[in-house]
Amino acid sequence: MKKNQFVIVGLGRFGSSLGRELIQLGYEVLGVDKDEEVVQEMSDVLTYTVSADCTDEETLRSIGVRNFDVGVVAIGDDIQASILTTILLKDLGVKTVVAKALDELHGRVLEKIGVDRVIYPERDMGIRVAHQLVSPNLLDYIELSKDYTIAELVVTGKMHGKTLSDLDLRARFGCSIVAINKPNGIIIAPTATDVLHERDVMVVIGTNEQIEQFEEAATR
Amino acid sequence: MKKNQFVIVGLGRFGSSLGRELIQLGYEVLGVDKDEEVVQEMSDVLTYTVSADCTDEETLRSIGVRNFDVGVVAIGDDIQASILTTILLKDLGVKTVVAKALDELHGRVLEKIGVDRVIYPERDMGIRVAHQLVSPNLLDYIELSKDYTIAELVVTGKMHGKTLSDLDLRARFGCSIVAINKPNGIIIAPTATDVLHERDVMVVIGTNEQIEQFEEAATR
Amino acid sequence: MKKNQFVIVGLGRFGSSLGRELIQLGYEVLGVDKDEEVVQEMSDVLTYTVSADCTDEETLRSIGVRNFDVGVVAIGDDIQASILTTILLKDLGVKTVVAKALDELHGRVLEKIGVDRVIYPERDMGIRVAHQLVSPNLLDYIELSKDYTIAELVVTGKMHGKTLSDLDLRARFGCSIVAINKPNGIIIAPTATDVLHERDVMVVIGTNEQIEQFEEAATR
Amino acid sequence: MKKNQFVIVGLGRFGSSLGRELIQLGYEVLGVDKDEEVVQEMSDVLTYTVSADCTDEETLRSIGVRNFDVGVVAIGDDIQASILTTILLKDLGVKTVVAKALDELHGRVLEKIGVDRVIYPERDMGIRVAHQLVSPNLLDYIELSKDYTIAELVVTGKMHGKTLSDLDLRARFGCSIVAINKPNGIIIAPTATDVLHERDVMVVIGTNEQIEQFEEAATR
Amino acid sequence: MKKNQFVIVGLGRFGSSLGRELIQLGYEVLGVDKDEEVVQEMSDVLTYTVSADCTDEETLRSIGVRNFDVGVVAIGDDIQASILTTILLKDLGVKTVVAKALDELHGRVLEKIGVDRVIYPERDMGIRVAHQLVSPNLLDYIELSKDYTIAELVVTGKMHGKTLSDLDLRARFGCSIVAINKPNGIIIAPTATDVLHERDVMVVIGTNEQIEQFEEAATR
Amino acid sequence: MKKNQFVIVGLGRFGSSLGRELIQLGYEVLGVDKDEEVVQEMSDVLTYTVSADCTDEETLRSIGVRNFDVGVVAIGDDIQASILTTILLKDLGVKTVVAKALDELHGRVLEKIGVDRVIYPERDMGIRVAHQLVSPNLLDYIELSKDYTIAELVVTGKMHGKTLSDLDLRARFGCSIVAINKPNGIIIAPTATDVLHERDVMVVIGTNEQIEQFEEAATR
Amino acid sequence: MKKNQFVIVGLGRFGSSLGRELIQLGYEVLGVDKDEEVVQEMSDVLTYTVSADCTDEETLRSIGVRNFDVGVVAIGDDIQASILTTILLKDLGVKTVVAKALDELHGRVLEKIGVDRVIYPERDMGIRVAHQLVSPNLLDYIELSKDYTIAELVVTGKMHGKTLSDLDLRARFGCSIVAINKPNGIIIAPTATDVLHERDVMVVIGTNEQIEQFEEAATR
Amino acid sequence: MKKNQFVIVGLGRFGSSLGRELIQLGYEVLGVDKDEEVVQEMSDVLTYTVSADCTDEETLRSIGVRNFDVGVVAIGDDIQASILTTILLKDLGVKTVVAKALDELHGRVLEKIGVDRVIYPERDMGIRVAHQLVSPNLLDYIELSKDYTIAELVVTGKMHGKTLSDLDLRARFGCSIVAINKPNGIIIAPTATDVLHERDVMVVIGTNEQIEQFEEAATR
Repeated sequence: MKKNQFVIVGLGRFGSSLGRELIQLGYEVLGVDKDEEVVQEMSDVLTYTVSADCTDEETLRSIGVRNFDVGVVAIGDDIQASILTTILLKDLGVKTVVAKALDELHGRVLEKIGVDRVIYPERDMGIRVAHQLVSPNLLDYIELSKDYTIAELVVTGKMHGKTLSDLDLRARFGCSIVAINKPNGIIIAPTATDVLHERDVMVVIGTNEQIEQFEEAATR
Repeated sequence: MKKNQFVIVGLGRFGSSLGRELIQLGYEVLGVDKDEEVVQEMSDVLTYTVSADCTDEETLRSIGVRNFDVGVVAIGDDIQASILTTILLKDLGVKTVVAKALDELHGRVLEKIGVDRVIYPERDMGIRVAHQLVSPNLLDYIELSKDYTIAELVVTGKMHGKTLSDLDLRARFGCSIVAINKPNGIIIAPTATDVLHERDVMVVIGTNEQIEQFEEAATR
Repeated sequence: MKKNQFVIVGLGRFGSSLGRELIQLGYEVLGVDKDEEVVQEMSDVLTYTVSADCTDEETLRSIGVRNFDVGVVAIGDDIQASILTTILLKDLGVKTVVAKALDELHGRVLEKIGVDRVIYPERDMGIRVAHQLVSPNLLDYIELSKDYTIAELVVTGKMHGKTLSDLDLRARFGCSIVAINKPNGIIIAPTATDVLHERDVMVVIGTNEQIEQFEEAATR
Repeated sequence: MKKNQFVIVGLGRFGSSLGRELIQLGYEVLGVDKDEEVVQEMSDVLTYTVSADCTDEETLRSIGVRNFDVGVVAIGDDIQASILTTILLKDLGVKTVVAKALDELHGRVLEKIGVDRVIYPERDMGIRVAHQLVSPNLLDYIELSKDYTIAELVVTGKMHGKTLSDLDLRARFGCSIVAINKPNGIIIAPTATDVLHERDVMVVIGTNEQIEQFEEAATR
Repeated sequence: MKKNQFVIVGLGRFGSSLGRELIQLGYEVLGVDKDEEVVQEMSDVLTYTVSADCTDEETLRSIGVRNFDVGVVAIGDDIQASILTTILLKDLGVKTVVAKALDELHGRVLEKIGVDRVIYPERDMGIRVAHQLVSPNLLDYIELSKDYTIAELVVTGKMHGKTLSDLDLRARFGCSIVAINKPNGIIIAPTATDVLHERDVMVVIGTNEQIEQFEEAATR
Repeated sequence: MKKNQFVIVGLGRFGSSLGRELIQLGYEVLGVDKDEEVVQEMSDVLTYTVSADCTDEETLRSIGVRNFDVGVVAIGDDIQASILTTILLKDLGVKTVVAKALDELHGRVLEKIGVDRVIYPERDMGIRVAHQLVSPNLLDYIELSKDYTIAELVVTGKMHGKTLSDLDLRARFGCSIVAINKPNGIIIAPTATDVLHERDVMVVIGTNEQIEQFEEAATR
Repeated sequence: MKKNQFVIVGLGRFGSSLGRELIQLGYEVLGVDKDEEVVQEMSDVLTYTVSADCTDEETLRSIGVRNFDVGVVAIGDDIQASILTTILLKDLGVKTVVAKALDELHGRVLEKIGVDRVIYPERDMGIRVAHQLVSPNLLDYIELSKDYTIAELVVTGKMHGKTLSDLDLRARFGCSIVAINKPNGIIIAPTATDVLHERDVMVVIGTNEQIEQFEEAATR
Repeated sequence: MKKNQFVIVGLGRFGSSLGRELIQLGYEVLGVDKDEEVVQEMSDVLTYTVSADCTDEETLRSIGVRNFDVGVVAIGDDIQASILTTILLKDLGVKTVVAKALDELHGRVLEKIGVDRVIYPERDMGIRVAHQLVSPNLLDYIELSKDYTIAELVVTGKMHGKTLSDLDLRARFGCSIVAINKPNGIIIAPTATDVLHERDVMVVIGTNEQIEQFEEAATR
């Protein structure tokens, strides 16, 4: 299967990080930005880079954006440029166009003009960091539904040396441990006799409430 | 246990999203920003809001930041203000100070002056979005280690109607399904006879390579 | 029949002229502009005036734009404000939204987000003035189709004192005179014996080519 | 007859549209603007283009404006440049000078310094659009005098299938239909048996009041 | 005879000096300037002062400029404001309008719009200072015609103690002394026996060449 | 006698007019200005022109200002540059330095740092124009002392056809006519039988009061 | 003896530090600055503070600067303001005026206009720091003449435990120790048997060369 | 011993004076500044000069700062640049880094990130000048401890012709004279018979109070 090719318009902090990671994952990326200096800096990292104003149809056409599968409009603060670039990418035939929105209203316009997906990096990151701040042991999490979450939690001192059966999570809190990440490797679907050590990392699945109560019990 | 109280300096997109979520999670939040208009807008959302210049020690003292457990320096683009506010929060006795860095050099300074945790929202979000872009079925994921990942994947048409034993994931790809999110509820630790339907969401654990191969097989 | 009520956002040269004329025609008009001075100046002319930023949903709601039948987005040079205001007016339920576009790309976005009609005042006026400049006797015209035009032409000295049958327009050029505007009144469907005087104004219908040839003959 | 040659100073939205149309009509046009980028963009469209400051006599002389028959001062927002360019064009011997005015005071100065015609594109367009907004079936119109108008009106559903004698316009409203534009061609001076279909376009002549009453009857 | 009343628009260095001198000469002066601070400073000096934008007809009308006999447009660097104010003063019925021009083109516009007199203070002062610089004994002068000048010259050491007959100006240079200004009073139409002393000031009439030669002889 | 050479720093309206006139009078002039465009424009007029920052000692030295006899600091609005340039010209050995002052305080500093003469062009011109405005027949004048003036007055209609003995100036007003400028030449020391014609120009000497009374009598 | 009273114009880093120290030394200080915020901040420190523009004679007069014995013009970067304030302070009768100069040319002007002392804080501090950087043991020094210096040097480990006679400075290097600062007090005119300890501080007098050689010997 | 090599970042008034003095003292200095003009000016003075942005790690690496022994961050007003440059110099391995701080908070950050010494030039100079202003005879001084000072004092007229035994300093005031600087040379450790002359300079050691009393006695 031919791998998708990406064009990223806007190489600010979000756009350049995205580009770097796509390259890391083995994809071809064209980076475009109005600012020549920024383009210069990314020219070693990305497959191709161009300094151009992407609100001009002729320009976009001449750099051949139509040949790319996915367009990401990662323009920083200029809502107008974001909207105009997005509509041009769609009109020029880029199959999938993803755009970063500054706020909900910006997002609404992007959807109306046919963007395939709107991203709110700062808003989403704010939410994610909030969860980590209130649960110091929480490393990361996936919200499965309104109620259910998978959480990656650090094993506290209080749990050190205990087996899963000692903890008896399912009975006491209703949630279950699906994996334990230990210095010497990951245990998937751990058994009741597996022992936890401080600094190990557990992957727990359950309702928000269950996990919260478990966490609180584990740290108090 | 008394809940932590948070002070957030800088109510831009990241800071205000963080504040909103903390309030949502039931915490008290003081939001501070130089821009009165921004403060005005958040005054309905946060517990307290103040418009002030946080690079002035007297100001910080007078708004009583020392009484807060966690300080988040979410200042947008002004590296100098970020650094000065951070050192003042630490010196005034805020136990935990978390700060947003614009780039790696900024982060290095923040660490030297004693910040407890540095966050790079745009960089992290760039990485996360990159993964989602290359795997259209990937909703979210947790990187457990350099090799292992838990991925939340949409069930494709190709898998529709199949049981887990039909798929035989463990044998064919080495990864396992720890949960299935169906319209009528989540099945934790699903059994071999559970049937997948298109649009269901699976939670899969495995090495990056295993998951990638499974995903590719599922979409092709 | 209850008369439509209009809200005009942007009271620059185009918007204020539009507002004045609507008032003249007996309609109620609410004028909105960010610039207080501009609003002040129009407050004697329009039914209601408000100084407000129309890219803010709350603001639009609070000034009650939903009660207006027609919204005209006549914002001068700020494409972003034009787009955001337009989407908000539509979302708030204004039945008909008309917007001024700066260029074709701006117009395309406006159409995508659901505007009912896009106007290009400077472009249209440029075309109209071009026609008047190349035919000094042409006062005004309506383009009926790609080929047919109704033209309002000044009677030249060369035609002075001639009857319509002298001119024999239909035979010589193929076009016909539908009206003659004379100092003492308009003659609709003039007869062959009606006499033309210099400075009278004829209304001629015909193909572009016919009218052009007639005009050239009349001035040479 | 040698065709007039035009020089347009100021290639903004109005000036460039005017230039395009003149070219379309087969005339030679020299376009001048201070902004090199703007000039570059129009260089494919106009006969000649020059980037120059037109408030400098030497410059105007050196680009040979005196050889042009008509000068159009279409400068956007700079009243001073508009006035100085106008006086220079007149002094250099351009026979006809037409200038765009921003407001009535600007227009008064232009007239005092000898301009042959003052145009107010935004104001005129505002008036024209106002008429179209209040009569949704009105496509275009010519104001023949204070009282009489020729209007181009869309045939509504209510009139569909009726003959002109059914409508009996002259008797009921006092106005008359001078042409009907149908998909398969224009009928000039239609007869009483001609049938109207929805979406046909009528050209009606009459007093403003007559046309208004007809229109109202047609839509109600 | 009722004394003229003056309105001065623009209270910069030229305008305020003019105003001060008119007051000194016993006239009533209204000073107007956009800058409130400038107006404040002149409020002790002039009869009336107003801070207003003089390119607005309503404003000029409301401060009653029509009641003034002479209007002086002494606006510093803003050619547009100078032109608009001038035309408004004329239109409002100020009998005599005098305006300061920045350069020859500005002056030409002012004349076209009906100004009664154009002044070029910096240009005229440059010429005057040039003459004084090349003739160090020249205090002041009046150019009577292209050839003739009246010059006010300091008596040099070389002439000290000489009588007018000693100098024999008329015979040697062709020019004549019409007055001598001495510490104890002015001698008008001095006689041949009047004695000159160093530092006395002579008023000499003659052709430019005659005066130049006399001056050179006197200093060498 | 070798003619003086002038260096003028600052080629604004005053400086360039001064330079032009010195060239006219046959002197060599070096013009210096920071603004290259200004220098370019004067390069055809002055003997030499240089674009340079005159507050830098090395620069002034390298353009050889020390070889000039007279330095004129005609810098427009920058008091600091005026002061620094002045002190450098003096220190580099320019014999005579003349400087334009913006106000009295600026003038005081210039005198303290050793300038040979301070000029206030706008102030002086304001005074001169004031006198001309209050006496419409006054063309020019020299103030000989606090009391005495020589005035160049236009002969009014009322004096037309009169001889000097008719007017009997000395008896009636105490002032005397030292010259009459007629279309065909100047009459110096006119006799009692010389006849005045309207539009002739008289040169009158007398006290301010005498001349004022004469003028009033002549116009009433 | 009545103590001098000081007025400091310009409360930047230098001016405010100077003011603080004068207060510390028991003197009365009036601080003046254009910036109200700066004045506000110093109002607790200095005897009196005023926010005013010190280039205005009336202002200086009204705050009574003439009653102060010493005026310090510590204006940061505005050479013009520095010069104008200085001349005004002198003219208003302040006995001693000290002014900070940005560079040598600025200093020259200040001297010409009669300042009593010119200070170059950054330049002087640069020199002082240079000396400290090249001699890591040098704490401070006074340059007595071109050759002689008194230096305050830290006793190095190499000298620890030695008596002055052990070191025999006068014989070996030609310089002498005039005091030793020890934790328990200062020994003035120490004797040959006084013992040095690491971290003691010696005050040495000698030629630059002697001290340099001693220092080098002491550290090597 | 190989001499230290210095790199100075920021060539403003402080940095350039420091650089000049180090060169004077025989050291090699690399000067770096963002402003090319500033670099140009110092290129004749310092050993090497580079125009570069020192907040960029690559840049600093490429100009080889790691080869220098001492780095001085003398950046003027940009706290952010000062902090970032400082951390980079430390990280790149410059042994000793000295940085100029604008205020106490800036200094605190510099210390936290590991700077070896913080300098406050304006503050220190303010203190030094304060002492000189209050004691007009004080030329310079070293503060040995909180109590003791060495002062360099001018001999006043009152002391003229007196021997040290006449003055009897030690008995009357408790302080002693360690050197006298006379026109013909310095007398170190002067004896009781040495005679003082006006304008000689004494070096006095004693407590602050002793010196103050002596000084007061000497001037009264």
